[in-house]
Amino acid sequence: MILSALLTSVGINLGLCLLFFTLYSILRKQPGNRIVYAPRLVEKEKKSQQADFSLERLLPSPGWVRQAWEPSEDELLSTVGLDAVVFMHIFTFSLKVFTVAGIIGITILLPINFLGNQLSYDFSDLPNKSLDSFSISNVDDGSNRLWIHFCAAYVFTGVVCYFLYQEYSYISSKRVSYFYSSKPQPHQFTLLVRGIPGSSRSSFSEVVESFFKDYHPSTYLSHTVIRRTSKIQELTKDAEKLYRRLARLNSNDNSHKRFRRDGFLGIFGRKVDLLDHYGKRLEALQDNVRMEQSSLAGKEVAAAFVSFNSRYGAAIALHIQQGVNPTEWVTEQAPAPQDVHWPFFSSSFMKRWICKLAVVVACIALTILFLIPVVIVQGLTHLDQLETWFPFLKGVLNLTFISQVITGYLPSLILQLFLSFVPPIMIMFSSIQGHISLSNIEKSACSKVWWFTVWNIFFANALSGTALYHVQVFLEPKKIPQVLAEGVPAQASFFIAYVVTSGWTSISSELFRMFPLICSFISRLCCHNASDDLEVPSIPYHSEIPRVIFSVLLGITYFFLAPLILPFLLVYYCLGYIIYRNQLLNVYAPKFETGGKFWPIVHNSTIFSLLLMHVIAIGIFGLKKLPLASSLVIPLPVLTLLFNEYCRKRFLPIFEAYPTECLVKKDREDQNDATMAEFYGKLVTAYQDPALMPVQYSGSSDGRTSPLLHAANV
Amino acid sequence: MILSALLTSVGINLGLCLLFFTLYSILRKQPGNRIVYAPRLVEKEKKSQQADFSLERLLPSPGWVRQAWEPSEDELLSTVGLDAVVFMHIFTFSLKVFTVAGIIGITILLPINFLGNQLSYDFSDLPNKSLDSFSISNVDDGSNRLWIHFCAAYVFTGVVCYFLYQEYSYISSKRVSYFYSSKPQPHQFTLLVRGIPGSSRSSFSEVVESFFKDYHPSTYLSHTVIRRTSKIQELTKDAEKLYRRLARLNSNDNSHKRFRRDGFLGIFGRKVDLLDHYGKRLEALQDNVRMEQSSLAGKEVAAAFVSFNSRYGAAIALHIQQGVNPTEWVTEQAPAPQDVHWPFFSSSFMKRWICKLAVVVACIALTILFLIPVVIVQGLTHLDQLETWFPFLKGVLNLTFISQVITGYLPSLILQLFLSFVPPIMIMFSSIQGHISLSNIEKSACSKVWWFTVWNIFFANALSGTALYHVQVFLEPKKIPQVLAEGVPAQASFFIAYVVTSGWTSISSELFRMFPLICSFISRLCCHNASDDLEVPSIPYHSEIPRVIFSVLLGITYFFLAPLILPFLLVYYCLGYIIYRNQLLNVYAPKFETGGKFWPIVHNSTIFSLLLMHVIAIGIFGLKKLPLASSLVIPLPVLTLLFNEYCRKRFLPIFEAYPTECLVKKDREDQNDATMAEFYGKLVTAYQDPALMPVQYSGSSDGRTSPLLHAANV
Repeated sequence: MILSALLTSVGINLGLCLLFFTLYSILRKQPGNRIVYAPRLVEKEKKSQQADFSLERLLPSPGWVRQAWEPSEDELLSTVGLDAVVFMHIFTFSLKVFTVAGIIGITILLPINFLGNQLSYDFSDLPNKSLDSFSISNVDDGSNRLWIHFCAAYVFTGVVCYFLYQEYSYISSKRVSYFYSSKPQPHQFTLLVRGIPGSSRSSFSEVVESFFKDYHPSTYLSHTVIRRTSKIQELTKDAEKLYRRLARLNSNDNSHKRFRRDGFLGIFGRKVDLLDHYGKRLEALQDNVRMEQSSLAGKEVAAAFVSFNSRYGAAIALHIQQGVNPTEWVTEQAPAPQDVHWPFFSSSFMKRWICKLAVVVACIALTILFLIPVVIVQGLTHLDQLETWFPFLKGVLNLTFISQVITGYLPSLILQLFLSFVPPIMIMFSSIQGHISLSNIEKSACSKVWWFTVWNIFFANALSGTALYHVQVFLEPKKIPQVLAEGVPAQASFFIAYVVTSGWTSISSELFRMFPLICSFISRLCCHNASDDLEVPSIPYHSEIPRVIFSVLLGITYFFLAPLILPFLLVYYCLGYIIYRNQLLNVYAPKFETGGKFWPIVHNSTIFSLLLMHVIAIGIFGLKKLPLASSLVIPLPVLTLLFNEYCRKRFLPIFEAYPTECLVKKDREDQNDATMAEFYGKLVTAYQDPALMPVQYSGSSDGRTSPLLHAANV
Repeated sequence: MILSALLTSVGINLGLCLLFFTLYSILRKQPGNRIVYAPRLVEKEKKSQQADFSLERLLPSPGWVRQAWEPSEDELLSTVGLDAVVFMHIFTFSLKVFTVAGIIGITILLPINFLGNQLSYDFSDLPNKSLDSFSISNVDDGSNRLWIHFCAAYVFTGVVCYFLYQEYSYISSKRVSYFYSSKPQPHQFTLLVRGIPGSSRSSFSEVVESFFKDYHPSTYLSHTVIRRTSKIQELTKDAEKLYRRLARLNSNDNSHKRFRRDGFLGIFGRKVDLLDHYGKRLEALQDNVRMEQSSLAGKEVAAAFVSFNSRYGAAIALHIQQGVNPTEWVTEQAPAPQDVHWPFFSSSFMKRWICKLAVVVACIALTILFLIPVVIVQGLTHLDQLETWFPFLKGVLNLTFISQVITGYLPSLILQLFLSFVPPIMIMFSSIQGHISLSNIEKSACSKVWWFTVWNIFFANALSGTALYHVQVFLEPKKIPQVLAEGVPAQASFFIAYVVTSGWTSISSELFRMFPLICSFISRLCCHNASDDLEVPSIPYHSEIPRVIFSVLLGITYFFLAPLILPFLLVYYCLGYIIYRNQLLNVYAPKFETGGKFWPIVHNSTIFSLLLMHVIAIGIFGLKKLPLASSLVIPLPVLTLLFNEYCRKRFLPIFEAYPTECLVKKDREDQNDATMAEFYGKLVTAYQDPALMPVQYSGSSDGRTSPLLHAANV
């Protein structure tokens, strides 16, 4: 790619970003859009404000930037939770790292690269200059200037490790203090126990009770055996939907809407009273649910939520193997009640294990299938290849602007489109895998999406070739540095374009929320009061985190290969920092709270990026005929791995479970708390399956409905 | 190697075995040799029987075989402990596996191999036939008969896995019942805590006490802070030796021995009263020890043994991270008091970690250095190569007998010699690594020796070439099957000879105990009553287990390549079974009891052997032009790995720690035990460093000595 193509791409995306910002700053002031741009606040206020019209509403203003910038970290923590703070720390960490990298890269490495003669381009024609002349490829083979790159690699690794250590230490201390300041929560006192051994004489419930009363007499509090309720769940969901529709009809006074034809699309057929019609259907559903519930009583699963009267008591049962057979009485920390994910629940050890294996196979299959769109994208960056495939395109492709758009913009857009299907698929895989909570599913999906991105975006693009070729390279580890050193620098221009397109534009479209905006517009056109159905979205960590840390990977690997990428990355992180702060404060509400458990993923991926950089460095110094530098790089990955191992021992345990010290202190605090008796009362029923609560929607044909009743055990 | 050379080797070794057996059955009846052949029994009886002379004492008899055969497993368990039973299970497991393998191999595979024409030797001259004609190399390329080998690989893998599962299950149940039947032991109630955070105001002892009193108020019993005492230990050892010598002098009535010249070797110099002389030296030593002890009081280490009043209480503190910083308050199960190994003790997290890394580097260095003797040995099996190196040997080497001895016998003897240095070195490495107990050191050394053996005996011999070449093969994983398939079958004759020489002879020399016999003979010649110094040896698991399971590896990998090895292996295991039973009953006394923790090493190494067989099978079917069979073997390693993973989840946890169920049951049993109060009293001082006990040998110049006094805290 030549410089002018890059500039075209930058121009297009800058324009898009500005457009999005302008539109956002106008649209967000319209009261009707509050449910799109500030659902979190709407939810809190519980009513949509009806502001008066003023001219100011139509003028773009940067006020939201200030609003997003202002809150301190503690304020952020108290409003959006620790996970969101950790998410923002990815941006601050990256900004720190790439500011240092940018200074080194732009002031030292870039001039050296540019002054090299290896690629021997014409110096005068800057716009048509290939971007490669800014990369290490342009430095002369065997030149002593490469030692500066060598030093830069060492210094940069040191800087990254220093910041990594600082962040890990800071976040782990935050995690502990977050735990100390937390209120008693059911999941802190509860374990999920799977693999309860069956008994012919007694039910699972009795087995659980006798086991825990026997072995944990002083700490055991209560338990809830899990039942298969997926069918009831569906029925209740339908009933609730129907109930809401009924309630809406009731609140509407204009009675002409109450009647509709019952045929196709409400156009044909007999006119019916909708209130009456829905009421009857709701009743039928309720009967159905009750019948299912009564028949389900026997469908117990060999798993239960077991609650203890102290956090430490739960931790004891969690950490020590319970039964002689380790595949029975398998304990794991229970998720928060609202975080429980039921559909794929499996209690059997073998079944879960097989599911896990199946998911691994499925992930591999997905990765291989995904190479097809990647190969298409690669064709677009190599226009000459495309011309030989489709000769009739020759005329069109010779137009400068079109060819620049195609090489600079289209490839990453297509990739982006295909990539957007991946996170939902990975979420599905992770839930099949047997995680019981949404948070764990997202965490597991997050790693999966990350590795998928690395493989399919980074390696598949850098190594360019057929799928089979990739696999073969990794069967010959000796060749990896060389192959990477040949492939990676050549794709520098693609990845710079990728950062600009995928990074800048996707992050500003995140702000603009195009899709929810259209949805809300349509629903307002049709129903006139969609705000009743308001559901505050939660931030999809599993797709956002991999995207952000993939840019870290690009920055780290290209730091000394093509430092030109760094300014674009810095812009990306600045945008991201402000925009995500704004979104977290206004749009997203946390669906769960892991207490910062996403950070180890960020840490590990950064370490991986460093190692990748080292491997490429080994290869490139070899290619550049500086074998001494090539072998002197080898201690670097070893030291990085040792550093990682140290961090793993020093910080990771805190992210897995809380230590005795914290648990006991927190338990003692509670002993003096008068509200604990009430909390224990609630704890007993906290993990009752919502599907098993008696349903009672008293919405009948008389036109009045009482609020949703889930009253039985409360 | 040709058949007659193998027969020569078998003949020599059979002769040696018979000689050893005969000598053993005579020598063991001589009362003077009881301390060599039955030190365990001597120790028990505490006096050497003085049997009358009879002719029967000079006749060889197989009575010891019956004695070794007779005890049932339960009797064995009660006399020699679970570790020894597990050790014997390696033999029974191997016998089961190789009986099945032998039946398949000899009746089906061997005839098929022999009837092949690939190597096209003359059929008539059987003695000069190369052993290769009994191996798979002789089967015609692309022959459909290879499918029989293919099926055999599948069947055999199934059989091995079945037996592995059975053994793992049996031994883990034995381990649990062994725990149930054990008496309360200090190490069950005690943890070793390292990384105690320092405090400027209080000593480590106070910090430990306040921490555990705070967080484990109901279970904490007592603690003992560890001190640096290596110097005192040496002094006390000297003092004890001196004291024993004094005691012996006292018990001897013939006073002429009391006087000796004080010069060189007791020949020159002034005559002195030895009693007086030793007494004075002992007193000086005692003063020295006391002085060191008083100066040591301050040299506390940031580590302590912390005892709890129940096994479950100790388990709780063991399994849950104690402090917020995971590098502080690091807990691990304490070893039994007599099992503690002090010399390399280190409490610092970082120091231990660096030591571990240093040991890894040292192991790699040792492995590379060891290739030198291996290359020499390889030269001996390829006589023609030796002749080109040393032309003057041509005349000697042309003699049939000598060449047969050299090719059939010498190589493995030299290897054996070099190999005998490895276990002590590995023990040293493991102790540097930071293990606190002898049992853990032996366990770790056992794995190290095993991997060392596999690499330096199996791979180095099979792959034949320079050290660098080996490493390069493993950098190109794709080529591994092919390289192994070329190298491994070619070395069949070497490994058959290895089993015969190293296996048969070393196992019968184990019975004969040549080295201790000579030592005892010499000491009897010099001192006349060496039996006072009697120290019952313990079985060196770290050298014996790898040797035995290396034969399993040979049997599994050569099962379908060269089934001729199987009868020799069966003989080896039969011999081993009887001889080790005999030795365990008569010679060795257990120095520690891990409760069968050695079995997972055996299991893992067997799985590795299976995988190695599969890799070779993939390669060999490829070489034999049967690519379909080659790819159909691939599911086999995958299935084996899954089986291993299942076993790891199903059985391994029991070998790492006992579950709540066992601990609580056992604790409850103790509650009704009246002797527990006394036990707790002893527990408080159980981990007192022996070096810090007040020394008091009242052996003074008056000629009378009281027994060793370690009385202070008891």
